[in-house]
Parts: sequence; structure tokens; C-alpha cells
Amino acid sequence: MKKEINLSGGIDLDAVVENSGKRIDGRAADELRRVRFTKDFITSAKGSVLVEMGNTRVICNASVDENVPGWMRYQNVPGGWVTAEYSMLPAATQDRTQREASKGKIGGRTMEIQRLIGRSLRAVVDLQKLGRRQIFLDCDVIQADGGTRTASITGAYVALKLAVAQLLKEGKIKEDPVVEGLAAISCGINKAVPILDLCYLEDSAAEVDANFVMTESGKIIEVQGTAEGAPFSKDELMQMMTLAEKGIGELIEMQKAVLG
Amino acid sequence: MKKEINLSGGIDLDAVVENSGKRIDGRAADELRRVRFTKDFITSAKGSVLVEMGNTRVICNASVDENVPGWMRYQNVPGGWVTAEYSMLPAATQDRTQREASKGKIGGRTMEIQRLIGRSLRAVVDLQKLGRRQIFLDCDVIQADGGTRTASITGAYVALKLAVAQLLKEGKIKEDPVVEGLAAISCGINKAVPILDLCYLEDSAAEVDANFVMTESGKIIEVQGTAEGAPFSKDELMQMMTLAEKGIGELIEMQKAVLG
Amino acid sequence: MKKEINLSGGIDLDAVVENSGKRIDGRAADELRRVRFTKDFITSAKGSVLVEMGNTRVICNASVDENVPGWMRYQNVPGGWVTAEYSMLPAATQDRTQREASKGKIGGRTMEIQRLIGRSLRAVVDLQKLGRRQIFLDCDVIQADGGTRTASITGAYVALKLAVAQLLKEGKIKEDPVVEGLAAISCGINKAVPILDLCYLEDSAAEVDANFVMTESGKIIEVQGTAEGAPFSKDELMQMMTLAEKGIGELIEMQKAVLG
Amino acid sequence: MKKEINLSGGIDLDAVVENSGKRIDGRAADELRRVRFTKDFITSAKGSVLVEMGNTRVICNASVDENVPGWMRYQNVPGGWVTAEYSMLPAATQDRTQREASKGKIGGRTMEIQRLIGRSLRAVVDLQKLGRRQIFLDCDVIQADGGTRTASITGAYVALKLAVAQLLKEGKIKEDPVVEGLAAISCGINKAVPILDLCYLEDSAAEVDANFVMTESGKIIEVQGTAEGAPFSKDELMQMMTLAEKGIGELIEMQKAVLG
Amino acid sequence: MKKEINLSGGIDLDAVVENSGKRIDGRAADELRRVRFTKDFITSAKGSVLVEMGNTRVICNASVDENVPGWMRYQNVPGGWVTAEYSMLPAATQDRTQREASKGKIGGRTMEIQRLIGRSLRAVVDLQKLGRRQIFLDCDVIQADGGTRTASITGAYVALKLAVAQLLKEGKIKEDPVVEGLAAISCGINKAVPILDLCYLEDSAAEVDANFVMTESGKIIEVQGTAEGAPFSKDELMQMMTLAEKGIGELIEMQKAVLG
Amino acid sequence: MKKEINLSGGIDLDAVVENSGKRIDGRAADELRRVRFTKDFITSAKGSVLVEMGNTRVICNASVDENVPGWMRYQNVPGGWVTAEYSMLPAATQDRTQREASKGKIGGRTMEIQRLIGRSLRAVVDLQKLGRRQIFLDCDVIQADGGTRTASITGAYVALKLAVAQLLKEGKIKEDPVVEGLAAISCGINKAVPILDLCYLEDSAAEVDANFVMTESGKIIEVQGTAEGAPFSKDELMQMMTLAEKGIGELIEMQKAVLG
Repeated sequence: MKKEINLSGGIDLDAVVENSGKRIDGRAADELRRVRFTKDFITSAKGSVLVEMGNTRVICNASVDENVPGWMRYQNVPGGWVTAEYSMLPAATQDRTQREASKGKIGGRTMEIQRLIGRSLRAVVDLQKLGRRQIFLDCDVIQADGGTRTASITGAYVALKLAVAQLLKEGKIKEDPVVEGLAAISCGINKAVPILDLCYLEDSAAEVDANFVMTESGKIIEVQGTAEGAPFSKDELMQMMTLAEKGIGELIEMQKAVLG
Repeated sequence: MKKEINLSGGIDLDAVVENSGKRIDGRAADELRRVRFTKDFITSAKGSVLVEMGNTRVICNASVDENVPGWMRYQNVPGGWVTAEYSMLPAATQDRTQREASKGKIGGRTMEIQRLIGRSLRAVVDLQKLGRRQIFLDCDVIQADGGTRTASITGAYVALKLAVAQLLKEGKIKEDPVVEGLAAISCGINKAVPILDLCYLEDSAAEVDANFVMTESGKIIEVQGTAEGAPFSKDELMQMMTLAEKGIGELIEMQKAVLG
Repeated sequence: MKKEINLSGGIDLDAVVENSGKRIDGRAADELRRVRFTKDFITSAKGSVLVEMGNTRVICNASVDENVPGWMRYQNVPGGWVTAEYSMLPAATQDRTQREASKGKIGGRTMEIQRLIGRSLRAVVDLQKLGRRQIFLDCDVIQADGGTRTASITGAYVALKLAVAQLLKEGKIKEDPVVEGLAAISCGINKAVPILDLCYLEDSAAEVDANFVMTESGKIIEVQGTAEGAPFSKDELMQMMTLAEKGIGELIEMQKAVLG
Repeated sequence: MKKEINLSGGIDLDAVVENSGKRIDGRAADELRRVRFTKDFITSAKGSVLVEMGNTRVICNASVDENVPGWMRYQNVPGGWVTAEYSMLPAATQDRTQREASKGKIGGRTMEIQRLIGRSLRAVVDLQKLGRRQIFLDCDVIQADGGTRTASITGAYVALKLAVAQLLKEGKIKEDPVVEGLAAISCGINKAVPILDLCYLEDSAAEVDANFVMTESGKIIEVQGTAEGAPFSKDELMQMMTLAEKGIGELIEMQKAVLG
Repeated sequence: MKKEINLSGGIDLDAVVENSGKRIDGRAADELRRVRFTKDFITSAKGSVLVEMGNTRVICNASVDENVPGWMRYQNVPGGWVTAEYSMLPAATQDRTQREASKGKIGGRTMEIQRLIGRSLRAVVDLQKLGRRQIFLDCDVIQADGGTRTASITGAYVALKLAVAQLLKEGKIKEDPVVEGLAAISCGINKAVPILDLCYLEDSAAEVDANFVMTESGKIIEVQGTAEGAPFSKDELMQMMTLAEKGIGELIEMQKAVLG
Repeated sequence: MKKEINLSGGIDLDAVVENSGKRIDGRAADELRRVRFTKDFITSAKGSVLVEMGNTRVICNASVDENVPGWMRYQNVPGGWVTAEYSMLPAATQDRTQREASKGKIGGRTMEIQRLIGRSLRAVVDLQKLGRRQIFLDCDVIQADGGTRTASITGAYVALKLAVAQLLKEGKIKEDPVVEGLAAISCGINKAVPILDLCYLEDSAAEVDANFVMTESGKIIEVQGTAEGAPFSKDELMQMMTLAEKGIGELIEMQKAVLG
């Protein structure tokens, strides 16, 4: 139903966190997967980055439309807009996923994710400073191994900053409308152990799934926690949040490095 | 964009929480709106309730389909299923909302809400005990004044229990598959004051919006917190959760009373 | 195919009109079911009523849009417009009906009914006097036991009058554009006996199905007669029309009473 | 909105029935337009006819599918089925009509008409004698000048009979399932004069529009009367029915002649 | 998948070109089927023709819209536009084809064909001379026996010329915007023999399928060659082109004759 | 309308082929752009390659479904199937292209291209040897600079061969079902000069556009030539084909090198 990859092999999900406390890929509980940003991945976009978190790989592109959406004009909403679209290549998952264009409609999961990405990024943009234009953040997952929505947000931020840099250079905007840095990460609880940045196998085995979007200053933009198996406690939520703060802090450092 | 009602009148949103700390409708910060459950509202449904939280009114109906959905048969998933659909009457909002059937597709907000309702209710149902059948929880908002998704979850629980009681009476199931009680409530932060159960006007003015789904035993099924204005802190999240615990506790008592 | 409720129980349709000439629910051939109008059922609508005819219950809401539809502007048609939409809650029928929004399209039966409602109401409205605005009449069936389309028309009239009263009060229109009263009723022929206001079971058993929309002055706005079993004669049509005149007259009295 | 042809020329609709009582094309009030049936118009269909009533021209084809529709199998309904589809070539009207395939959906008017055609034809077919098969009656209007739905029914009957003759010849059915003859015609009231078989101009000017489907034995299968301008009386309905009886009788004679 | 007619009868496709070199219907390899143009087939269209090539019959209508499409206005493209739509009556094929309007979308084959027709006709029209208007070329196949797309192009040219003649007569355009004549034909290779104007049976048996659109002056507007069985050589392409030149030349003569 | 990139800059299309006969990017008339294949680009696919031809970049993935499509089972067609889907990232073009999933339908151009890719690849596959399975060839253009359809075919061949190698290794098939090599290229005529492998700017300026799909043995699988400006001659078609033979020969060598 909800999981991104169907595994044909008979992997024992119960062994994802071993008795020794080690994770399936040997990481510590609070350790991110290998992260890589490839800047300017696509040259036709105003801002573009390939973000890789372990085997999850997402192309994030920012395009600028010098018009605002119809509803803004119609309702006389001032300023600009930032919106996002999310998609997966059919072959991004072990079992091919049907293309939403072929189905003729966008599924609920995709809608939920793209609304989350757009909402998160708008939270760090001063839409008045952006001016009368719209930025599209297209997040296309080319390989999915868990955490595609949080990787998309983290990458979309980089693509947005690159596009904004371009707009500043072109003199179209005078001041950077991006208020502060932002990144996102998933956490979970597996056999009572809170873990950071779940890969697909860990995500499948986790009792609790949570996604955090936080700012450079350590504030929360969005928190979503869902009981997969049994309901969870406030304490467990707090433990996951602590992991998330650490991971997001590291991601924001890497974003800064790549943005130079 | 996201708000449920467009107000033509020029209400001063800044005054929603007054200097005196009083809320627009005079409630205390931790006070629920008037709650009312009208059991067996529709007689054609297996379980039915009209839930009213202030001016928000939702008809929640539970229907039983003695088949499981196609994907369960296809993937050989054992047990039963619980799913939800959410809709608003066009006239439920001050400005008429276009019917999704007329648009020919379900919007992102509706998708998100109905996925949340289904996921929440499944968290308290033992799908094996439910047997090879599916329960549809239809939540139709006839009047919207904020908190329609949480009212829907709270009402859907009552409709589900009524339908289950019927199935037990008919001998179709032997044991109650509902593991424990559940209710949901919204919280927010308005002028730095955490408040419980926001009406539409408060929701429009709030800096932070959060929805909580919790069990009778005080555990979390789902938490969703979104910064509307500025990002928020961990402390603020905790304060809202404390309010939610109180409100959900009261709702669960009322559900028990109506279920007898 | 066409019937609103599938009955699981093995009711003997042949016994709907008994030998004694009595109807299944004990009514006389020319007797309406219990009718009830609950005015201002929804407070967010300009005009709202819950109409109940026996177990058939329909929420009728009138919303005012201060714009005329695009085709009127485009074709330079003067005056205002009245349109209707019809829907059923999924649980309104014994077997749950799939939501049209989920199917992604409106079925033929719904289209036919909402066109009929709109056409009927427009027949008693002076669209010039209505002014440059559109009234939406939303008829949402919450419980279906036969005669939902005629109950919708009868209720939509009340909702329309309530909305018009509001517009007059607000000074938006100067003169009541509603020319005269209107109501609708179904008739049928069952075992050669013409009967008035069929419930679902009677409708399923009837050889002929007819719907009448008539005015206060006893004129016909719409007549639709369909042979379900065998073709029928002109005499039979006339007998049904006589029943309809009686029933519609009674309904119009009740509408007047509720409108005060 | 509803009229089939938009006329660019400034024809005076008020003059459609002249003072002398003559109709715009010189016909008597109870006179049909010139009717022509071209049998076997399409050779790829099992039964095919081009029916022409004045300038209204419809290709009616009957195709046989040796399967019944899914819902019959699913609900265990015995016997066969007859269904109809109706369409207009874009250029059939003076102003080109957009193709419904291009719009991606079938409009309400088309739905209403094709449901009427199917229902009417099924009323004269013994579906048990038809056997476990489905007959599609495709009515494609190639030129529209009023009365396309009644011409479609009249032509569909001929196509159906031709297809049945073929099935009998092939030995697929043993007995003719068509119970009796059927035809349809429109009537109207124009300046208080009841008239038969309205062309487009007359239809546009008429105060009342009625369609009748009747059998060879003079019984009614369907009657639909709609007030276009002002409501009408029972007497007027009766006068139109008398005209319809005459016209339908003549059409049934012509059908018999062409069927040989 | 791609073939227009499914034949129930057990015709031996291997015998389509006999040992003697004769074709299934006795034609010579370079011989067209019987061609017939019925001018002014529909009187409601600005230009109309029924084109018949053997058993393939297509109604081609040209309608004039005195507006250009939205994208031309939006992108400030000067001049007029010519576009085409293609459809088949369901009963045009031996096995009934589902109506695309009923499916709710236009299939890939239809899209491909209507794009080809529009592109081909635009190649011989001076869009500046056409003026600020759009011509719709509707090609509706009423009977399909191979070569429907080329027959549509050949017929659409005649309909276009008839509409243009009308526009000239009405004084709406001053000069004929049609630059030169155009027709289209299919060719194929069957048992190594290149043949002209394939009927359905030949098309099904052919190893190579090619469609040619050429001008009066012998130039190519469009060539499409597809290997159905095995890949083909340049020589074979040239042989088919030689046949096409002959056939198209003959068609252009016939078009001239009918256009007078 | 048809061009893949809208250029904001005022490039002089007339200068694309200079007087000196040099092309805009300095290539000789018969010279391919820089070609690069990155094998195993996506690890979740059975076969995957990133193909780059100049600035045109396409991810081609082959996925294996161990079922054949429904229509093959239904029509009892033996063997396997190969199908293709084509899409562009929104930001692949200079001006962002709307996502087809968001539009809710696949456009005509996409349909045409994906049908061409599938048809071309099937021409070199022995579907019986492939066995009872389906191969999906997903071609996702991440950057578009002309020739995306031919690059997709050339890349899809590599992805297909990689997937087949995997199936052979897994023992699922015994014999390579790919009959021979295949590649595709575009040609055009610009200022009377035939040129090979057009970039976007050249494509926009070309009078004739042609796409060729050819085999290792030099035979034609598909040829499509379209007059963009003026019709073209047989000689010009032949000149383009000669260029295509050269280019395709070179591409096939490169494919062999990368496949090892």
C-alpha cells in the first residue's frame, strides 16, 4: 500500500536492527546515509541539483515563471509564489510503478508529498521580496530507497537558492527572499530504538515513522509522526526530534558547502 | 488557498485572542467547543452519527462491504480493511465550494484528509479480527467552521463502533476488533497563546496549526504540526500536545457516553 | 440498474399493493408520506431546508454567486441564472453507492436529475428580475427511499424562496423574482392501481413511473412518464395526473406554511 | 444552452406560425416532415439505416456483442440487453459543436438522450428471448434540424429489426424478441397552436416541447413534456398526444414498408 | 492492436496476393480502388464531402470559426489556423469499436492520425492569407476497410477547398489561401510485391505499410514507412513511392473534377 | 506548437547554417553530436542507461513484468511484449513544460513518440523467444535539445539488451530474443543542405524534418519525413537517408562498445 519498494528477496525485517544495536547497513542510530549534492545537474533549469542520500536519488529543479498563478491574480493576493511537484520515474522502485500520467491522475501520496514540499519551502521565503513571479520546484525521484520526500525538500532548498542567485545576478530581484536555511529528515522507531534517516528496509520494519522539516535556527516548520504498528509516546516523539535536529543540522552544513 | 471559509465581513483577525487572553467566542484556552453526537442519524447506514463541534457539523457513516478491496485479494493480504472518504457539501462554507464530482477529480486537501482518517482508524482496529470485509467510513461535512478533519475522525470512531456492534449482533464477527478508543483535536498558537479546538476564525489567525490523533491510553497515533506564519519551537509543540491530551480525553468520555 | 436501493431481504414485491387495495405502508392510494421541512438546516447557506418525505431526506441549499456563468457573459444573455446540483451520500442507500467524486465523473442518472431540477425551478423564476447573479440549488440526499428527485425539487423551491427573502432583505433585489409556487411528486401504477408518492419498494414494483412538476395555479412544468413493465394508456396517464394535482396542491400548502 | 442550431441569420421567431396558421415550411399542424429510410446504409453493421426527417439525418446502426455487460453477469441478471449511444458530428449543427471525445466527457444532454433511446427500445424487446447477448444501437446525427432524439428512436427500431432478422437467419435466435412496433415524435405548442414534428426553428419558438414514444398498439412507452416558456395545461398535453398518435402511426407504417 | 477490422471469417491472409500476382479483389498492383466524391454531403457544414475508396467511406466536413485558437492569441502568432479531428463510428468496423467519448479519452492512434491530417493540410495553406480564422476539418469514418487516414486527407482537401470557395464568395477572404493540390495514399509490400491503396485484408497481410502525402507538383509533404514484419530496403521504399506518385496523381485529377 | 524549446534570446534562425556551410555548433553536415552512454545509471531497473547526444539527455530504463498485458491474454496472443513510455521532466526545456500527470492526460506528441519507440524495438525482438513476459522501456528526457525521440530509441535498445542479459543470466530465457542491432537518428534540410542529428536550433530552422530507425544490416524499420516549410523532393529524402545510414552505423558501433 504505502511502501515505496516491494522486495522480492526474503529479507528478514525483524533483523533490521540487530541485537547488537547495529543497523542493517552498519550505521549508528544517529548517523545519516552518505549525502551528495551534484549542483547544476540539468542546465536547462534556473536552479538544479541531484541530491543523493544513500540509494535515494532525486533531481530537484527550480524553474521561474514570470507570472503568478491565476488564483493569486483573481483573489488579488500580492507578492510571488513557490510551488512544488513530485514524481517518481517508473523504474525508481524495484517493482515498476505505473506512471501517473498514464493513469490520468495524481495519487493521494504524491499530492500529499508535493503539498508538503511547497508548504515547507514557502515557510522560509518572503513572498513579497520574491516579486510578482512563481518558482516551480520539481522533484523527480530517479531512485527510491526511503526518505524520498525529505530528500526532495532538502534538495529543493538547494535548487531554490541556485535559482534565486540567478535572479539576483540577472537583477530581477534586489534582495534574497530566502529568510533562512531549511532541511528535512525522516526518523523512526525500530524495536524501541529511535533511528535517523531510514532506508527503505528500515522504513518497512519501523513501528513509527516521522518526518521533520526544520530551520537553520532549530525551529520546526513541519512535524508529521505516524504510528505504523502501535501508538507511540510523547517521549518517543521527543527522542526522534532530537535525532532530527542533529541530522538536519548536518544537512544544512552540507547545503551551505555546496552553495559556496 | 487552504482556509475552509472565506469571510466577506471585515473581521479583525488580530483580535481573535484579545488582550485579556479571552478567545473570540469567550472560551478558555483549553476549552472545547460544545460537542454533540446524534446517534443513528441516517438509518440506511450500518453505523451513523452526526457529530457537531460548535458550528462544525459532520455526518459520519459506516458501511460494511462483505468483500475486501481488489489490491488485498491480488497481493494476498489477509484480514479485513477500513477506509475513509471525506467530502464537504458545497454550501458548507460561507462561499460555495465547487463539488469535486463536478470538477471530475478529488483535490489534494481532500485526499490528504481521507488518507489521514483511514490511517487513524486502522490504527485501533485489529484487521484480522475484523474478518474478510471492508468498512467504509464516509465523513460528509454539512457545515464547516474549522477542525473538520479532527471532527471527522472523532465521529468516524463512533460510526465504526456502532457498525461493529451491529456486526457482533448479527454474529458476523465474534469479537470486537476495535482495540481501544480514539479521538482527534486541533490545536494552535495564537499570539503566543496555545489554544485548543480552533474555530475557523482562530484557525485563520493562528501562527501554528497542529492536529493530534490519540488513544484512550494517551498514546499518539498521528501528530501533524505546521508553521503557518513563523516556525515554532519544541516547547510550543509540547504545550499544544498537553492541550490535545486534555481535549481528547474529554472527547473519549463523550464518545463512551453516547455509545452507552 | 436504475433502482436506488438494493434490498437484501426477500421482500415480496408482488405484495406491495395487497388484495385489499392497501399499500405496503398502509397509506391510501392518494396519500402522501409524512412530509417535514426543517428550515435553516445549514446556517452557512443563503437558504437551506431539510425536506423529508417518509424516509427520503434531502438537504436543499441555495447559494448565491454574484456572477453569472461564463456562457451567459460570452453569449451576451441578459439577466440571471438558476442552476442545480444533485448528489447522494454514499450511505444514503441500503447498499453503499460509490461516490461520484471518486469515480471522477457524474453519472447519467445524476445529470438527468440535476438538469430536471434546474429547468423546473427556472420555470417559476423571472431571470431578469433576479439580476446579474446566479443561484445554485444543491440537493444532497442523505437518505433515499424513493422520490428523491421530486423531493429535491419541492425542497429546492423552499431553499430558493429563503435565499430570495435574504436578497430582498439585503436590498440586492427589489422585487421577488419567483413568479409562483411549485412542487413535484411521483406517481405510479401498481397492479393497475394508480398510487401517489411511491416509496422505494413501491417504485421497484410499479409498472409505470411518472414524475410531475406543477405550479400553484395547477399548470404543468414538466411531466415524465416511463413504462417500466408494459406500455400504458392515455387514461392511466390522466389518472396519475389527477393524483399528482392533489399531492402537489398539499405540498404547496405545506411550503407556504413553512415559509410563513 | 439547449438548442441544437445557432442561427446567424436574423429570422423572426415570432413568425414561425403565421397569422394564417401556416407553419414556416408550409406544413399543416399535424403534418410530418418528409421521412426517408435508407436501409443497409453501413455494411459493416449487423443492422443499419439512415433515417431522414426533413433536414434531420441520423445514421442508426445495430451491432451485436455476444456477451452481456459486466453488471448483468455480476448481478446474475438473466437474458440479454439492449443499449444505445447517441452522438452528433461536430458539423451537424450550423455552429460547429465540440466533439465530446475531445472534451473527455459526455454531456448531460447526450446522456439523457441515449438513456431515453435505450429505455424505449428495451420496452419492446423480450430480453429473455434475445438470449445471452447485447445489442448496441448507435445513433449518429450527421445533420441536426430538430427532433434528433425522436428520429434516433424511430431509426434505432429499424436497425434493431434488421439486426434481429440477421440473427434469426444465422440461427442464433429462434424467435423474434421484438414484441411490437415503436416510433417516436416531437410535438409542441406555438402561439397556442399544437404542432407535430418540429423543425429547429419551430422548436426554438415553441412554448412547450414534448416527446412521445408510442407502440403500434397505441400505448405510451415514454412521454416527456417540458414548459419552455409558460407552464401548460392538461388539455394542451392531450392535444399534443393526439397529434403524436397520428404521427407515430404514420411512422410505424413507413417502418413496416421499409422492413418489408 | 493496430488493425482496423477484426475478421471473424477464416480468410487465408497468405493468399492475399496470389501466385498469379493478382490481388484479392482482382486489382493490378498499381490500381486504386473505386473512388467516389459526394460533394455537399452535409448541408450544415461550410464545406462537406463524402469520400469513398472502395469500402472505406469518410465524411469530411470543413467548419469555419471566426476566431483563432487560444495559443495563437496568447503567443501572438499571426494569421489563421487549420486543424483536424478524426473519428470512427463504432459500427464502422466489423467488430464494434468503443466510442472514444465513452472511454473519456482519445487514443494514441486517433491522435496520431488527426495530427497527421492537420499537418498535411496546413502544408498547402498560406495561413496569412487565410486571415484571422480557424478551419476545422472533421473526418468521420462511417465505414472502414483500410486506408482511412489517407482517404481522410484526400477528402479533407476537397472539404477545405469547398469552404474556401464559400469564404471567397462571402467576401471574407480576397485570395485563395490554398497553395496547391494535395492527396494521400497508402502503399505496401506483400510477398515482395509493392502494391497501391491497400484494403484492410491486404493491410493485415503486408510486410511493410507506408503512407504518402504528396502535392500536385509531385513533392512530398509527409512520408511514413513502417516495417510490420521484417525491415525493408531503400529500394522497396522507392518502389512504393513510385506507386504513390501514380495514385496521388490520379486522385488529384478526380479532386479537380469534383471541385469543377 | 511543436518545438521542444522556446528560446527567449533573439537567435537568428536564418544563420543556423552559415554561408560557409558550417553548422551553428561547427559540426560538419554529416557529423553526430558527442554521444555518451552511461550504463547502469539507475540500479533499481533491470536495464538502465543514460544516453547523451550533445545536450539531449535521456534516462532509458528497462523493467520486466512477468505478466503479459491484458489484451494479449484476452485475445490469446502467444509470446511476450515490449512497450515503451516517454516523458520529459518539466525543466528539461528552457521554458518549463507542464507535467502530463498534472494535466491528467498524455498529449498527442507523447503518444506518437512512445508508440514509435515501442514499435521500433518490437521490430528487432522475437516475441516468442522473449517468453510470457513484458518489457517496459521507460524513456525519461532530463534535458531536451532536439532529437529526443531518436535518442530514446537508441538508448532504449541498450537498456533492452542489458535487461535481456540479466534475464539470460537468471536463466529466465534461454536464447537472446533480440534479432539484431538498431539505432535511430534525425536528419533535416536547412537552406537546401541536408544535415545529420539536428540540435534544437537547427530543428527549428529546418525546412524538412525526418527521423530514421534502421537496423545493423542497413534495413529500414521506420522512416518519417515531414515538410516543415515547403514540400520536399524524392532526391532530398534519399540524401537524408544516406546521412542517416552513416549516423546510425556509428551509433550501432558505440552501442556495441558499451554493451561489451
